[in-house]
Amino acid sequence: MNNRRNFLSGAGAITGAIAAASVSKVAMAALPEPVLQTRPDTMPPLTPSTGRPYNPVVTLNGWTLPWRMNNGVKEFHLVAESVVREMAPGFKAHLWGYNGQSPGPTIEVVEGDRVRIFVTNKLPEHTSIHWHGQRLPNGMDGVSGLTQPPIQPGKTFVYEFVARRPGTFMYHPHADEMTQMAMGMMGFWVTHPKGKHPLIDEVDRDFVFLLNAYDIEPGSATPKIMTMLDFNLWSWNSRVFPGIDSLNVRLNDKVRIRFGNLTMTNHPMHLHGHEFLVTGTDGGPTPKSTRWHEVTTDVAVGQMRQVEFLADEEGDWAFHCHKSHHTMNAMGHDVPTMIGVDHKDVVKQITKLVPDYMVMGERGMADMGEMEMPLPDNTARMMSGEGPFGSVEMGGMFSMVKVRKDQKPGDYSNPGWFKHPKGTVAYEYGAPMAEPARSSGAGPSAMPAQNMPAKNIEVQVRKPANGGHAGH
Amino acid sequence: MNNRRNFLSGAGAITGAIAAASVSKVAMAALPEPVLQTRPDTMPPLTPSTGRPYNPVVTLNGWTLPWRMNNGVKEFHLVAESVVREMAPGFKAHLWGYNGQSPGPTIEVVEGDRVRIFVTNKLPEHTSIHWHGQRLPNGMDGVSGLTQPPIQPGKTFVYEFVARRPGTFMYHPHADEMTQMAMGMMGFWVTHPKGKHPLIDEVDRDFVFLLNAYDIEPGSATPKIMTMLDFNLWSWNSRVFPGIDSLNVRLNDKVRIRFGNLTMTNHPMHLHGHEFLVTGTDGGPTPKSTRWHEVTTDVAVGQMRQVEFLADEEGDWAFHCHKSHHTMNAMGHDVPTMIGVDHKDVVKQITKLVPDYMVMGERGMADMGEMEMPLPDNTARMMSGEGPFGSVEMGGMFSMVKVRKDQKPGDYSNPGWFKHPKGTVAYEYGAPMAEPARSSGAGPSAMPAQNMPAKNIEVQVRKPANGGHAGH
Amino acid sequence: MNNRRNFLSGAGAITGAIAAASVSKVAMAALPEPVLQTRPDTMPPLTPSTGRPYNPVVTLNGWTLPWRMNNGVKEFHLVAESVVREMAPGFKAHLWGYNGQSPGPTIEVVEGDRVRIFVTNKLPEHTSIHWHGQRLPNGMDGVSGLTQPPIQPGKTFVYEFVARRPGTFMYHPHADEMTQMAMGMMGFWVTHPKGKHPLIDEVDRDFVFLLNAYDIEPGSATPKIMTMLDFNLWSWNSRVFPGIDSLNVRLNDKVRIRFGNLTMTNHPMHLHGHEFLVTGTDGGPTPKSTRWHEVTTDVAVGQMRQVEFLADEEGDWAFHCHKSHHTMNAMGHDVPTMIGVDHKDVVKQITKLVPDYMVMGERGMADMGEMEMPLPDNTARMMSGEGPFGSVEMGGMFSMVKVRKDQKPGDYSNPGWFKHPKGTVAYEYGAPMAEPARSSGAGPSAMPAQNMPAKNIEVQVRKPANGGHAGH
Repeated sequence: MNNRRNFLSGAGAITGAIAAASVSKVAMAALPEPVLQTRPDTMPPLTPSTGRPYNPVVTLNGWTLPWRMNNGVKEFHLVAESVVREMAPGFKAHLWGYNGQSPGPTIEVVEGDRVRIFVTNKLPEHTSIHWHGQRLPNGMDGVSGLTQPPIQPGKTFVYEFVARRPGTFMYHPHADEMTQMAMGMMGFWVTHPKGKHPLIDEVDRDFVFLLNAYDIEPGSATPKIMTMLDFNLWSWNSRVFPGIDSLNVRLNDKVRIRFGNLTMTNHPMHLHGHEFLVTGTDGGPTPKSTRWHEVTTDVAVGQMRQVEFLADEEGDWAFHCHKSHHTMNAMGHDVPTMIGVDHKDVVKQITKLVPDYMVMGERGMADMGEMEMPLPDNTARMMSGEGPFGSVEMGGMFSMVKVRKDQKPGDYSNPGWFKHPKGTVAYEYGAPMAEPARSSGAGPSAMPAQNMPAKNIEVQVRKPANGGHAGH
Repeated sequence: MNNRRNFLSGAGAITGAIAAASVSKVAMAALPEPVLQTRPDTMPPLTPSTGRPYNPVVTLNGWTLPWRMNNGVKEFHLVAESVVREMAPGFKAHLWGYNGQSPGPTIEVVEGDRVRIFVTNKLPEHTSIHWHGQRLPNGMDGVSGLTQPPIQPGKTFVYEFVARRPGTFMYHPHADEMTQMAMGMMGFWVTHPKGKHPLIDEVDRDFVFLLNAYDIEPGSATPKIMTMLDFNLWSWNSRVFPGIDSLNVRLNDKVRIRFGNLTMTNHPMHLHGHEFLVTGTDGGPTPKSTRWHEVTTDVAVGQMRQVEFLADEEGDWAFHCHKSHHTMNAMGHDVPTMIGVDHKDVVKQITKLVPDYMVMGERGMADMGEMEMPLPDNTARMMSGEGPFGSVEMGGMFSMVKVRKDQKPGDYSNPGWFKHPKGTVAYEYGAPMAEPARSSGAGPSAMPAQNMPAKNIEVQVRKPANGGHAGH
Repeated sequence: MNNRRNFLSGAGAITGAIAAASVSKVAMAALPEPVLQTRPDTMPPLTPSTGRPYNPVVTLNGWTLPWRMNNGVKEFHLVAESVVREMAPGFKAHLWGYNGQSPGPTIEVVEGDRVRIFVTNKLPEHTSIHWHGQRLPNGMDGVSGLTQPPIQPGKTFVYEFVARRPGTFMYHPHADEMTQMAMGMMGFWVTHPKGKHPLIDEVDRDFVFLLNAYDIEPGSATPKIMTMLDFNLWSWNSRVFPGIDSLNVRLNDKVRIRFGNLTMTNHPMHLHGHEFLVTGTDGGPTPKSTRWHEVTTDVAVGQMRQVEFLADEEGDWAFHCHKSHHTMNAMGHDVPTMIGVDHKDVVKQITKLVPDYMVMGERGMADMGEMEMPLPDNTARMMSGEGPFGSVEMGGMFSMVKVRKDQKPGDYSNPGWFKHPKGTVAYEYGAPMAEPARSSGAGPSAMPAQNMPAKNIEVQVRKPANGGHAGH
């Protein structure tokens, strides 16, 4: 089986590391050296030092691929290969990806750039890359069999075209497509506008990531590739909460978030506390007359969406897919309900059916987020993520937009948990004047218990409009 | 197990009923008395007698929660608890909800209102409430673990914020969210505009409901909470057809319908006989330049949509989710086809596999709507609903918009079946001049059988554009 | 069982064929003779010789129903019946449809036309037809039980209404709806505008088709009708790739494609190489202020969409649903992964589980597209379709828009594979100067192997913005 170590030793001498941590280069003949990434960290924006200037994006738990200029052409080198992706702390998946990780690195170019991409196939089967959404010569479209021969294992193919229109794109195989995307092969692509564009605003932060899904049985590491619907890991950039970094911004930043969907179902992306506009798709920026405010935008499979909002509310704002099962990690879906049942006698039977999981109780599932239960090795917990007030009871496609007054421009680091101003946190009625329990962080906001005076209370009376029940 | 009776006796004295039938109040210390609802009827609009005026909505098979004014603050009291919901006549589900029903009551306030909501947890596990779509202090956002501690069983929490922007919202738990929403915990929220709003038109009727889904095995009453996809009950406000009330309007009324989706899949909401505009989302009203006509709008999970149309066509117009399985009630989905098979010999085997269901015939499934077959107790029939011309053969997410010339303003009561004008109903060719068979209702429209005269008939001749087949 | 032969012999004398091949007429009393179609070919556009003029559409692997004029009324005759549909070469499905095929014929009329449709039921169970999206008298809406009695087997019903608004519609049963649509009963309807319409542009090509899905077990021919989610055949007009004709257009043609969805899930329709606008829905044409560019538009169930684009890029451009499983044909979905596993020992076990399928290899699935494996009779291969560069490895909802400089106006015939200009096809790095392997077609474009000169290369250096990792 091909893996990083084989690839590196097979490829020959490592010629030295680029500045940022955990990015390394491998020399390979006259090809541009492929730049590899071995960690799932959110890398800082890659400020361009050659070519036209642009405002770089930040890839959530990912990175941007460096290039070399060759006679005015931007040259990139993608290596399709087996990778190990840490999807959450302690849970490593055996995927297929590019340049050491799944997804592959983000490619950033500027409108009008001539781009040459070398694609080396280190997979055990043939592949190709389709440059989704791009205007390009038909023979560069990457549809194996239709517009080019497949790239056989061990071979390198060359794609070359001009990035003709600015926008939000992605790349993925168009050869044994179902398998290769189920294994994690995909990457983001941003073509920045050349100069000012009337429909593309400058923003203070610009985040990108892809939505993907895997079916990895608890205790195992390789996805099942024939699964059509019943995935058990719903991820952003092949990470699941609490493995997904937060999107950290400064109060009143104009924020753009771009995402694309390569799963098998729609994902309604929901942001708390703010309304956003959809300002662009893989078809281009949206005219202003078409834009309306949403707190949840549905991203269909194969679609890219870019949303923009003013981050004018301080706090830790949940940002997630609104399908409740997509904010959970691996679990069985065909389990009898225990709610309202005295299950003392049936525990044994259930355990026989789903031996690797705890039985949900007659009281619901909240215990799952709080207890440490035995799980198979290498399994992400179903409900997880420790917040300042206890377990967030989430997994999968969940993160936070953290808005802070004192976040510095250009600083993408995590500011920790929000310190709520006094009197702004929901509190227990009748409890003594006390700090709400917080599991971490300084300066929790004290919530005074209130006595509800009965005076000045007018009771709202139901006044039927037509004297009886309606609608029968 | 907690239930209504326990809650009432535990809470102490009942202090008297509010005007409308089947709404009762329970005294509880200095907290506002929680108002409870025990029936699944569509209650008439709750005209505000305190606070700013507004045009109230009508909740399909639901009701609006009364409040009390306390020093200028609107105070509501929601009680999270076990409820029994009659999903259709004769079919009672054991759900979790608020104030006696699932969904909980609709909350109606006015832009700029300061709102204080007491949430009492009578569930066996902790909970929280997230005020979906609202602008509010981060600590009032209701995300358990992240923005507040969970509300433990027996405790009451206080949320307080200003309803800053008008719109269509909902509330639901953000603690053990998958379980609690699968059990029915959710409610509608409308913030009416303060005065005229350029994008919010005044309408004659304003209906609201939530889309939900359950997996309740035939013969049982409690949902399976781990189901991700294979739900068998697709409901509006936890009701399935024929348990869903019709939306009854006056001819030429301007009608607004608002809905929100808390299932696990998209629902394409389809109205017959009229085109509508999407005039708002949980992000706010849509600018007029963004609106286009639809007869089917897709509501993604976690999205609110408000649609508007002029009810200018008299009749009983079907209104439903367009996914054919979502207008059916409980049935098995993994059944071999019998169409075209002489099944005399296999009936026994099939019956062994799905003992509780009738075998679909070699002639299709229409028999299901017409025959009375033995079903397990407490099960909604798969295809049901008696119309004026026989079985409507529907279940689930199906109802009707009934448009009548003589429906009085403010009258939401059901006018019965439409009396079609003569000559406007599809009729049997060659049948004797007779009334079409109608199972109920006075004055059916006589459909004269027509003889098609053969004279003056020009036959349309296929004229190939390029002399042969296309597209090969 | 009812079939074509029985119908023809039962109906009496055949009176002669209409001009175009494989369209035949059957006399039946004073009813208009039903026109039948026995082949799944894309028929050329039906230019109107009576009634108001219009620019006809082309139905992908389908046809338009001729009519007769009767005293100013356009009369159509639809016959609901069992049909045999060749879904792909060598794979015949036993469906229900209209006039010999599934879907039924496209109906084309002009805004303001009075239309009379005779519907004869040759099915073994009752049916009805709903004219989705139309403005019409409530009694003509076709909802069995609600707006009319069902059409019993052997009977003919008459529908009559004025096609009041131009647009893109469909028809389908509203009686035992789930079964009858799962069996293939549906058809397209276009109402052309009367004269110029400010929002309906004239186009050079106008294609229409419906999205449908079937669950037909390998080796069998009749769909399972209870399937809700796990369909194994995703089709356009009941055809699967490579059985779907290509959409052949002339360079710089303005092209309109209209589609509607009668499956159980959303289909994101993706076009390569071009951006399109959504110019209309079943609700009407979209105002220009609402339009934005897309390369993938999501079509919800029960929705019609019309998209328009300028075909200004020559080539063979993939056009498909972007859900990867929807561009595959029948296969099992619950199969353990073999990737990375030496499966020599487990082949026997897998074969026991899914005896009719080949085992996917440790190298992925690409072998499936290339090898000839034993399949059950009458089964579409999972990954198929021979392109100019080998297997396209696709099935299901996949076709191509073929854009050619020399395609004649009005010529819809397939121009063969695209001949790429020199230097425009992705090529193998380091390979000798040679033609890329092409399995067919003259004049492949030679791809010169390039030596990458190392001079003039500037290496892009990662310059962290804030000196470290972000987002932790």
